[in-house]
Formats: sequence, C-alpha cells, structure tokens
Amino acid sequence: MAIELIYIDRDALVSAGLLDFEKAVEDVERAFKMLAAGEIVMPPKVAIELFFDGGSPKGHFIAMPAYAKPLGVAGVKWAAGFFRNPERGLPHGLDVIVLSDPETGRPLAVMEGALITAVRTGAVAAVGAKYLAPDGAEVAAVVGAGVVGRAVAHALKAALRGLTDLKVYDLKREKAEAVAGEVDGRVAGSLEGAVRGSDIVVTATTSHSQFVKLSWLKRDCLCVEVGKNELEDSVILRADKVVVDYWEQVKAREWVSLARLWRQGLLPESKIEEIAPIIVRGRLGGGGLRVFSPIGMACEDLVVANRLYREAEKRGLGVRLPLWTATDWL
Amino acid sequence: MAIELIYIDRDALVSAGLLDFEKAVEDVERAFKMLAAGEIVMPPKVAIELFFDGGSPKGHFIAMPAYAKPLGVAGVKWAAGFFRNPERGLPHGLDVIVLSDPETGRPLAVMEGALITAVRTGAVAAVGAKYLAPDGAEVAAVVGAGVVGRAVAHALKAALRGLTDLKVYDLKREKAEAVAGEVDGRVAGSLEGAVRGSDIVVTATTSHSQFVKLSWLKRDCLCVEVGKNELEDSVILRADKVVVDYWEQVKAREWVSLARLWRQGLLPESKIEEIAPIIVRGRLGGGGLRVFSPIGMACEDLVVANRLYREAEKRGLGVRLPLWTATDWL
Repeated sequence: MAIELIYIDRDALVSAGLLDFEKAVEDVERAFKMLAAGEIVMPPKVAIELFFDGGSPKGHFIAMPAYAKPLGVAGVKWAAGFFRNPERGLPHGLDVIVLSDPETGRPLAVMEGALITAVRTGAVAAVGAKYLAPDGAEVAAVVGAGVVGRAVAHALKAALRGLTDLKVYDLKREKAEAVAGEVDGRVAGSLEGAVRGSDIVVTATTSHSQFVKLSWLKRDCLCVEVGKNELEDSVILRADKVVVDYWEQVKAREWVSLARLWRQGLLPESKIEEIAPIIVRGRLGGGGLRVFSPIGMACEDLVVANRLYREAEKRGLGVRLPLWTATDWL
Repeated sequence: MAIELIYIDRDALVSAGLLDFEKAVEDVERAFKMLAAGEIVMPPKVAIELFFDGGSPKGHFIAMPAYAKPLGVAGVKWAAGFFRNPERGLPHGLDVIVLSDPETGRPLAVMEGALITAVRTGAVAAVGAKYLAPDGAEVAAVVGAGVVGRAVAHALKAALRGLTDLKVYDLKREKAEAVAGEVDGRVAGSLEGAVRGSDIVVTATTSHSQFVKLSWLKRDCLCVEVGKNELEDSVILRADKVVVDYWEQVKAREWVSLARLWRQGLLPESKIEEIAPIIVRGRLGGGGLRVFSPIGMACEDLVVANRLYREAEKRGLGVRLPLWTATDWL
C-alpha cells in the first residue's frame, strides 16, 4: 500500500491562492474563533536558539505544532530565522510546513512555509486592525516594506473597507514605493511623517530600537507591533488596551518589549487581553490608545496552509511523492 | 536565487544505507556521546494527543526538534502514532523528518521518517545491550517481531559479537519465523520460553500488559523495555540498575511504567541513571538485574537521518525540489 504526500512549492502555493489576502484574513479570523471555542490543540512553540562563537545571536529554529479539529487537519511549521541571511542574499525566514491527517497520522503535504508565514502575519495585523482600530479609522501607516510589511499593506487593504490613506515607509525608499504602488498607497517621506496623523500604525521591521514615539501618535490610535520592539515603552505603558495573541508565549520571549515590561513589574498581567475572545465578541468600539502585539501562532499557519493544500489537491498543483514504493519493512 | 531541498523516500533511504545496522549502532553511540558532551541542543518533545469521541486514545503527533553542533545539522521529526492504523492496513507510526542547515536555516531535506525511527530504536536497544548486558551475555530474546522488533534483532546482531543464541517470539508465529530467519536466530515457542534463560530480553511490543515476570528472569539479566509497559513492576523495583535515555522526558509520560512508579513514590529518582554518561565511561561490568527503558530522543533520529542525507546527496538519490522558482516575494 503506497502512501503519497504532495510537495507544494511557493509558485504552486501562489497558484492555489496564497496571495488572496481576503481569504487569508478570513482564515485568520476563523483560526481565532476556533481558538476561542477550544477547537484548536496548540502546545507551546519550541525554540532552538543558535549563537555565533562570540555569543551574539545567529538565529533560531522553532517547531510550531497545532491541530484544528473542525478542519480535520494537524501540522507543524519548522521555522528558521537567521539574522545575517540578508547579507548573504538569503531571506531572514526559511520555513517548511508539514500537514497531516488527524485520523491516521498520515502526512498529507509538505509546503514552502516562509511566504505563508508572511501572508498570515500580514493577515493577523489586519484582523487586529479590523477589530481594534478606533472608530472612524481612515488613515494607516505601514512601517517596513519587506516581505512582511508588504503582506501587511495588502492585508490592511483587504480587511479595512474604510481606509482612505495608506502610507508606506521604509529606510529604502524604493521598497516603500514598490509596496505603495501595489496597494494604491503613498510613500511617507519620513518615519515621523508616516506615524503622525495615522489612525493605525503597523510596524513590521526587525529593528529593536523602539522608534515609534508616543508624542507622534494621535490620541485615538492603534499600534500594531509586528516586530515586537518597535514602540517606545511609554506607548505600551500609556495604552488604554494592550492586546496580544497568546500571552503565555509572549511572556516566554525575553526579548519582546511586553515581556520585559511585565517582568520589570511595569505592565500588570491584568492589563493584557487576548485577541481571540475579542474576535468572537465583535469589534471594539470607541477610541483611545491601543496596542496589539502578536507573537504569531501555529494555528494561523495551519488554517492558511490547509486551505492552500485543499485547493492544490483539487487543482492538481504540487508534486506527488511516495513515502515508499517497494519495501517489506512495514 | 533558487533554493532546493531533497525529498528522500524510504526506498532511497534504504539505497543510502538505512538498513546498515552497524552504522546505525555507531550513529546512536555517537549521538549519546555528543549528548553527554553538551554538543546537542534538544528541547523537550511536544505532543498533541488525539482521542475518539468516547475519550479513548486515538493517537498522537510529536514534534521532536534537535541540533547537533559537531554534525552541522538541525532538524525536526514530526512523528505520528495511531493505534487503530494496523486494522486499516496502515502502519502504527508515520513520520516525516526535516533537516536544516544551522548556519542559514535553509531546509536541506525532507525524509520518510518511520523506518528511520524503527532502525534507530533498534540501535538504541542494541547500544543499551552492548553497554549494560551482564558479563558474558550470550543469549538474547526479542519479544515482538513487528518492524521495531525486527530492527532490534538486526541491531543486536550487529552490536553484540558474543551472541550465540537469538530467540524471537511473536504472538504471530510466522512473523517470528521471518525475523529469526533473517538474523540466524530461532523461534521461541512461548513467551516464557523466550524470556527464561536469556541474558538479554528486549520487549518491542505495543502491549501495556506488563507480561515479563520477575520469576522468569535469570539473576544476571538485562531487560530492555522498548514498549515501556512490558515489565512487571517488580522487575523494575528489584533491578540493581534502572537506566533511561532522558529522565525528564520519561517522567513527563504518565503512561510509562517508570514514570508511574516514580509518581507513586516507589521508584526513587536517585535510582535512575541516564545512558549517555555510561556510554562515555564504558561498558558496565558485572551482573545483577538491569533495566533499560528508552523513551526515544530527537538526536538519535537526527544523527541517522543526517548520515543518510549526506550519502543520498553524494550518490544523487532522492528528488530535488525547489522552494520556489519564480517569485518576487522575497
């Protein structure tokens, strides 16, 4: 009895609809709803941290398993992030996702995972914006126009019908121009210019320099901190709402601003809310200063990857590979 | 810049030397030595347990990441074990292994993992026998002639030069006959007959019935409990030595006899030894009753998988697959 799995590379994933950001936003909302309903089994991520000989961080691997009962699928993302890759012409993140059948354990698919990660991260930021942005939000800024910032810009566009102005900023102006062009946005001439006047500020950078200043922000404003160290501490400490995806996981990451402020006793745990129950209850009306700081969850990858796998199966995309053909070791 | 990985199915793994049990035994010894030297990074396994509607166990997924510094390789095994699979004509275990480059995070290979698991499990039992068997051990019994028991029989043969009698027992006599034929062994007519008179008893079954009785055992005897619930409690409690691979992981598994006896306060933690330092120190001389109860470790899979990947690369085995060919989302 031959068992096959499908290998789906990035090109096939795109053909299967990976860059359909409306679907990605729906997927992520669904993941949050399933999570809130207790329909997801998702153990904590497990990380392996790697260091250069001198002790400075080289990168990490993270194993992220999850099982989504209503979708009949389980899987793991094996995610790598290596800081010096861009210098070598390689992407920072290089991920592989394996999907399996939760009735038999049979592997169903192996997929390129880095673009799925970028797209679902953009969708998570956009779902946060959809549910947490102050009433009447019209102006958004995306800071950082790398692959994740680009996905954020597309996802905001897909999730927020009321946007009239989408600003994009990047240290490399040509990257900001490219992304702005794709989403009918405009390039902000400066970081401060991007942030000032925005109802929604999404930071998607690898910087740890906490560059978003409280004094730049509108009184009613949502900051979505995808990079996790981009907001001045005072932004988090003065915020009326601090929302995360998975507090236990945020807490466990020493280098995340929120975790550090909590350990320092400056940010009480009682001030932290998780996004999933908010998605179930409905959009948070009103205004004030709000922060959303998602760490990323395996169930988000799983739901997007599952949709693309089913679509690839239907359309004959990907490469069918046997686990074995002839073997008597069974 | 195109990045490729190699997919290696079971047939290609066998061509690359997966069934070379002498090499597997060397690999596992090396894994234990690296572990003892602090050269392995191996976070705890993470499990997702699945249940039937009535609450009885259906199966599990386990994510097993590890990084072996001296080998320059990291990886994860995504292991599934589903109890009712044999009734459906599927193997109980269905595993996939992903190997990655620890300098860049780049995925190197995706491999069929279930036969690697069986082979390394056999090699672990055999390495345990090599280092823990009483002086002058000549007679061994393998109870259970499934894929793991078969691997155990081959690995014992490869690891122990002094064996003069290798008995194989299985509830299905024809399975025992097939395995005995492969390893110049003989079929034991009964379970008791297999165990009695043996210097080494390896149990490789899925039974939880603790079928090995203390009264059947020689005074000088090593029991290797691959299935984890095959020895009468008194065997463990009376043993002069109780050795595991990774005590923290054994402890965490409620259903394992050793963990239960420890929780019940019957087996003091001070009586438990780990195998890796014993491998470094050298074979344990003398006699008495000894128990080795390995839970299985990611580093064992990693070392075997890495050898097969390098060999497959060298010999052009496996299928080369791109992560992407054309994409501007980089």
